[in-house]
Amino acid sequence: MSAFEDRTRRCQDRLADAGADAAVLFPSTNLFYASGFREEPMERHLFLVIPSEGEPAFVAPEMYDEQIRDASWVEDVRLWADGEDPIAVVSDLADEMDLRGGRLLVDDTMWALFTQDLRETLPDATFGLASEVFDDLRMRKDETELAALRRAGQLADEVSVEIRELGEDAIGMTETELAAEIDRRLAENGGEEVAFGTIAGSGPNGAKPHHRHDDREIRRGDPVVLDFGAYADDYPGDQTRTVVFAGDPPEGFAEVHEVVHEAQQAAVEAVEPGVRAEEIDRAAREVIEDAGYGDRFVHRTGHGVGLDVHEDPYIVDGDETELEPGMVFSVEPGVYLPGEFGVRIEDLVAVTESGCERLNDSPRTWEPL
Amino acid sequence: MSAFEDRTRRCQDRLADAGADAAVLFPSTNLFYASGFREEPMERHLFLVIPSEGEPAFVAPEMYDEQIRDASWVEDVRLWADGEDPIAVVSDLADEMDLRGGRLLVDDTMWALFTQDLRETLPDATFGLASEVFDDLRMRKDETELAALRRAGQLADEVSVEIRELGEDAIGMTETELAAEIDRRLAENGGEEVAFGTIAGSGPNGAKPHHRHDDREIRRGDPVVLDFGAYADDYPGDQTRTVVFAGDPPEGFAEVHEVVHEAQQAAVEAVEPGVRAEEIDRAAREVIEDAGYGDRFVHRTGHGVGLDVHEDPYIVDGDETELEPGMVFSVEPGVYLPGEFGVRIEDLVAVTESGCERLNDSPRTWEPL
Repeated sequence: MSAFEDRTRRCQDRLADAGADAAVLFPSTNLFYASGFREEPMERHLFLVIPSEGEPAFVAPEMYDEQIRDASWVEDVRLWADGEDPIAVVSDLADEMDLRGGRLLVDDTMWALFTQDLRETLPDATFGLASEVFDDLRMRKDETELAALRRAGQLADEVSVEIRELGEDAIGMTETELAAEIDRRLAENGGEEVAFGTIAGSGPNGAKPHHRHDDREIRRGDPVVLDFGAYADDYPGDQTRTVVFAGDPPEGFAEVHEVVHEAQQAAVEAVEPGVRAEEIDRAAREVIEDAGYGDRFVHRTGHGVGLDVHEDPYIVDGDETELEPGMVFSVEPGVYLPGEFGVRIEDLVAVTESGCERLNDSPRTWEPL
Repeated sequence: MSAFEDRTRRCQDRLADAGADAAVLFPSTNLFYASGFREEPMERHLFLVIPSEGEPAFVAPEMYDEQIRDASWVEDVRLWADGEDPIAVVSDLADEMDLRGGRLLVDDTMWALFTQDLRETLPDATFGLASEVFDDLRMRKDETELAALRRAGQLADEVSVEIRELGEDAIGMTETELAAEIDRRLAENGGEEVAFGTIAGSGPNGAKPHHRHDDREIRRGDPVVLDFGAYADDYPGDQTRTVVFAGDPPEGFAEVHEVVHEAQQAAVEAVEPGVRAEEIDRAAREVIEDAGYGDRFVHRTGHGVGLDVHEDPYIVDGDETELEPGMVFSVEPGVYLPGEFGVRIEDLVAVTESGCERLNDSPRTWEPL
């Protein structure tokens, strides 16, 4: 039995336990996790229906026939051609699987375009979210998954060092040029594609936690937030360093950087099996609050990372997930001073039997390498 | 009034005409189109609520405060912090705007995670899709949008020529390496980010219409389908050429390429105001059917392109949209011989007063440049 089929069987057990009749997935990481077939969301109807008992089936555009058969162990693939009505295929399948009055768990990321269609096609069904069964399954990574996450971490480390070695050469580049250079090196070092839009936030732009990059030129002394990663074997990297390429940073920057660095260290040290996710958030937040920047740490400390760059567990107040070996998440406290600069330091960590393993280990200092 | 505010006011008129009380958008191209604020979908609650009358309002994570205020003309931004309940903020807003029993149009791409929340929070509301008002608004591009689409087309043209000039140097590269080289050059030539996962499908991989790239090495004589584009000023490029880098292609390839080339030409020549979208599909399909490959042309002829790489109109049987000046779409017929090779040729075109303007013009021949 393939790893993918094995995951599907475990999903079916959980569906039955949850009193659900089927999971209805569309192109998502859940669909890849269960089937081995990977695709981006799109406006054409493509579903994988996993009943709580029996065999799963794809409903797919005809043009995906060969790709699905190559990638997936699922044998039942029901095709529709452009110009035909995919809903008729879904409707027939619902009859065969006896799902008309069932409880269906749809992908959390399924587009309203499709959930509206499912609701109209199956008016007697009730709907829940597939995260109810998938999140818990996916939270504990197996060795293959951990190996891929390590490779993605190493790739981000390599590029972090290469980029910082630009030193004076980075001065005068725009953020957009710097981000393109990061993306190019991620690909050159073996990355599959970027895991999210690369962030290169310089000076005051670094104070906007999710600013990506614009045409601002990097100046001597600018603190620059570099947050990036690429996929390796389908699993993403995600690392942040806040650096100065050349020159002296603004007053107060070194102190804030030190506070964030200490907060990140404290949070990583708090990671071990049995600790709750929210306690890791608390560990980072206490350091930053004690230093007087509590109201400038405007986001959670981290997020789980797997096939999705953001997944369970979330390192935030209220997430009571007890950490277990195999869980992987980011630890990324930050302090943001609007109009001045921001500082964020982020590593991925994997929970081990006795603590955790950092998946990133490039220098965390801000000083030019 | 900013272009974004003007679009929102036109959206409000259409909401009223459609008998809808509000559009509820999440991070989507509709949200960017109306507000000027651009972000990717994410698991945090971020909505823009546009009532049919009165002022729109954001509900957003606290960390997005500065970014939204910088990017958008919308003044009413209601924040929630990590650890707080965003649904309470949505609920209050629904009371203020009197939406509890209303008809709400949600983004077609809104995640089930959020539509489920909205349904639970507002059990007396009814739900439709925002495409009902946005698609028609967005289909006709203004001059600013056309200028951006031209730049994105030119960028794809430049990279197409550069890559084909690799000639013998491409032999022995893997598809993944070739795709990374394309992405690097797109960035180097000023692209913002790739518009979709770059496709480099060689030999039999080219017969899978949406295969991206894998570790197959490109051999002499391999037909290679190259389908890529990057954003320029927020609008995407999308161009396909099927090429041979060096050596002699397999028997039958040149004939199939000629058929597809003629089909593409026939379809482009059929474009003019007043013609229905499906007639453009018919024009391409007839050429391919006449040549005996009708059952190997397994997808529609094209799709509209704007802020989304796939949007209205669709160039497919059944789409009766009458073409109007300012509409932009792809014309991309293809023939796929499983186990052998595939051929696809794609340009974007903009409908003009008298016909159309091609937005791509790099050589369409398969022969080495």
